[in-house]
Amino acid sequence: MSPEEFRRLGHLVVDWLADYRANAGSKAVACNASPGDLLAQLPKAPPEQPEGFEAILSDLDDLIVPNLAHWQHPNFFAYFPSNGDLSAVLGDFLSTGLGVLGLTWQSAPALTELEDRVTDWLRQMSGLADSWQGVIQDTASSCAMIALVAARERTTKHGAVTTGMQHGQAPLVVYASTEAHSSIQKAAMLAGFGCDHVRKITVDANRAFDVAALREAITTDLNSGLRPCAIVATTGTTTTTAFDPINELANVAEQHGLWLHVDSAMAGTAMILPECQPLWHGIDRADSLVVNPHKWLGVSFDCSVFYVRDDQHLVRVMRTDPSYLRTTIDDQVKTYRDWGVALGRRFRAMKLWSLIRTHGTERLRTRIRRDLDNARWLTEQVEADPEWRLLAPMQLQTLCIRHEPVGVTGDALDKYTLDWLQRVHDTGRAWLTPAQLDGRWMVRVSIGSLTTEREHVAALWQLLQEVTAT
Amino acid sequence: MSPEEFRRLGHLVVDWLADYRANAGSKAVACNASPGDLLAQLPKAPPEQPEGFEAILSDLDDLIVPNLAHWQHPNFFAYFPSNGDLSAVLGDFLSTGLGVLGLTWQSAPALTELEDRVTDWLRQMSGLADSWQGVIQDTASSCAMIALVAARERTTKHGAVTTGMQHGQAPLVVYASTEAHSSIQKAAMLAGFGCDHVRKITVDANRAFDVAALREAITTDLNSGLRPCAIVATTGTTTTTAFDPINELANVAEQHGLWLHVDSAMAGTAMILPECQPLWHGIDRADSLVVNPHKWLGVSFDCSVFYVRDDQHLVRVMRTDPSYLRTTIDDQVKTYRDWGVALGRRFRAMKLWSLIRTHGTERLRTRIRRDLDNARWLTEQVEADPEWRLLAPMQLQTLCIRHEPVGVTGDALDKYTLDWLQRVHDTGRAWLTPAQLDGRWMVRVSIGSLTTEREHVAALWQLLQEVTAT
Repeated sequence: MSPEEFRRLGHLVVDWLADYRANAGSKAVACNASPGDLLAQLPKAPPEQPEGFEAILSDLDDLIVPNLAHWQHPNFFAYFPSNGDLSAVLGDFLSTGLGVLGLTWQSAPALTELEDRVTDWLRQMSGLADSWQGVIQDTASSCAMIALVAARERTTKHGAVTTGMQHGQAPLVVYASTEAHSSIQKAAMLAGFGCDHVRKITVDANRAFDVAALREAITTDLNSGLRPCAIVATTGTTTTTAFDPINELANVAEQHGLWLHVDSAMAGTAMILPECQPLWHGIDRADSLVVNPHKWLGVSFDCSVFYVRDDQHLVRVMRTDPSYLRTTIDDQVKTYRDWGVALGRRFRAMKLWSLIRTHGTERLRTRIRRDLDNARWLTEQVEADPEWRLLAPMQLQTLCIRHEPVGVTGDALDKYTLDWLQRVHDTGRAWLTPAQLDGRWMVRVSIGSLTTEREHVAALWQLLQEVTAT
Repeated sequence: MSPEEFRRLGHLVVDWLADYRANAGSKAVACNASPGDLLAQLPKAPPEQPEGFEAILSDLDDLIVPNLAHWQHPNFFAYFPSNGDLSAVLGDFLSTGLGVLGLTWQSAPALTELEDRVTDWLRQMSGLADSWQGVIQDTASSCAMIALVAARERTTKHGAVTTGMQHGQAPLVVYASTEAHSSIQKAAMLAGFGCDHVRKITVDANRAFDVAALREAITTDLNSGLRPCAIVATTGTTTTTAFDPINELANVAEQHGLWLHVDSAMAGTAMILPECQPLWHGIDRADSLVVNPHKWLGVSFDCSVFYVRDDQHLVRVMRTDPSYLRTTIDDQVKTYRDWGVALGRRFRAMKLWSLIRTHGTERLRTRIRRDLDNARWLTEQVEADPEWRLLAPMQLQTLCIRHEPVGVTGDALDKYTLDWLQRVHDTGRAWLTPAQLDGRWMVRVSIGSLTTEREHVAALWQLLQEVTAT
């Protein structure tokens, strides 16, 4: 496509997206598509002759939009906010349009140096010590795996990198709470620990890591001849936003020489508020940390910032040095390919830079505080209604709720919960996702989409009462 | 940022990019930045108050562009083409602007179904059997790791996933040639095999996998009580574009029950030409395969298509099933998070769909044939000049060359090579990258940027003669 065609069509794309975003709230937040609906409408074979990009544009409204849930919708309360602020969207456009690739520093110097600086901006915004070094990865899942690989090599003194995991030696053990994200177990599986060696430690009444139980588990494993290796803590668990006690976990990690990785993928954004920073007290004692600006903060997916304190250790573990990637200034620069899995890297710093500069830190903090206020308001409504229950302490912006009419319990309650949730979705007026807590279904209300104001939260509360009215 | 601000600024971004692409050829292809140049110009702290997106736009020309090498430049002959055709750029704009996330099928049905279909289109275009199932990952490095994890679990009958790698059992061994990409060793390291258990098998005169040497290595390992697990073959090696003999390797894999992964990241694009498909004869006997449309084909980075034949095995290995991601139709749909590492997924199919539909398959084939012609033309020039040497058979679009004046040998030749390459870069008129072959530096000429025509290749040949003229 020529630059002039791109200019013409690019304006159409921008206009289409501006309209899509402006009108997001006017359509149903989720869709009623059934499996195979779109597939049935797509040609089985690729076109031999050019259709032109106009063909894509004309299919957007007919084929694509009806088969999407709308994550940028003000009534999106599912999963977690995956905000793509339009300033970050434009930053990403620049990255894609420039089409440069970070294989080495030399291959795109600005890509590396801007990433170095903006991850440091986010560090400062989050009140983290200057001993942390940042890098942008795709997702927290990858970050967890990288953290466990780094942990593995610290425990084995770079033995696993050489001779493989556990050959002739006792298995390494990873400790996380029962509320840790599924990606932790996956990371341990990928990195060769084996799921049998992921201890799921019980949680306390607030669903946070039970440190006494952790100490017991470590002692048991040591007595069995196993090798404790890493603790994965979560500040803001997926289901209930519980905060594990980082400082106490750091004491345990220090005592036993374990790697401490902190998963703050979603809630890390709240740490740009000084009043929230006590929630991860002790964070500067951890070894690695992940915060996802592609969630609540507003940077278009994917932008997962991985912080590490001993970057030299990480690079020693991850480094490859083939001749076709060598440059004369390798010892003077950061070589981010050695900080993660992928060799090729997008210019992802551009979108984080765009967001922070467009808005400034104060306006970003104001938006996050708005969401906290809205969540507190909804919590008050739920707590004031005797038929509704708040099932876990509301910490930031996610509520775990259930409607519990008198006499409805057990399996009947599960069915009742999923039924009214389906009625919510059938209206198209809100999208929420369910999760299990203590083996029973409940509903998560995750507040924090960019365009979600108090009126949308109030309308949700109204809707919840409608679908549960007898 | 409001949709109306986005509309106004988005048009400016599109115009800026149209100009950038239109004028790419008029600026130096690489930059003369020194480490820290950009960092010194970036504020150390984030702005407290809004600067507006205009601040980004005004810094592009002054700060960003001077600190980039230009991958979309017609005189880009370095590494490999990382083409971002402007149709794919627009497809990516749509993906970013829509801001939907593929966690589950339900979270964005079109994201999954379009990915299913367009990876199948690429399969058909490449002459692959319909037993292959495709998924889009970020890079070939991740694909290699996923392949080795799948291999590991097939060999251990899902033991490693459970009890960890090699605990109490003999180490698993991976076989690749000495010319395999550095990401293979990294993948084996990440997945817990240990670098000691990656056998680097010698290559033949064409720098392809020596199958006899492979058989010997397997026998030796079996006799030592080790467990052969996987063969990683390359169709189009990084340094010289050598093609490993897939069909013969498949014989070995079949005989010993080994997983066969094929890395065709760069050269896989050539397989859209029927006349090139014999180069990977036997490919349908492999277990997994990676082709990167984000290289030569023209899809903006990142878009790495991973094909697997036994997707049920892969999903069984990679699956996690937390309650907060469960939906009622999970058994009727593809759940791509279980095909890779990341949980969250961008709508990457959009850019591959945009490229293929905009151009049609015939025009894409025509462009690839143009590049093959240009590479053959340059090969003829090199071969006709007695002072230039072609160091490996020219297979597709990469030449490995060296200027060898009479009497310059050994270390002096290395110095001479790197010196004239520096003189090329100092002109800003071309960018090439060096690599080592048999322990000596040579220069790779990788032809295939979107805008690289015969005139650019002829100008390169002229330039090479200038910088080596005595």
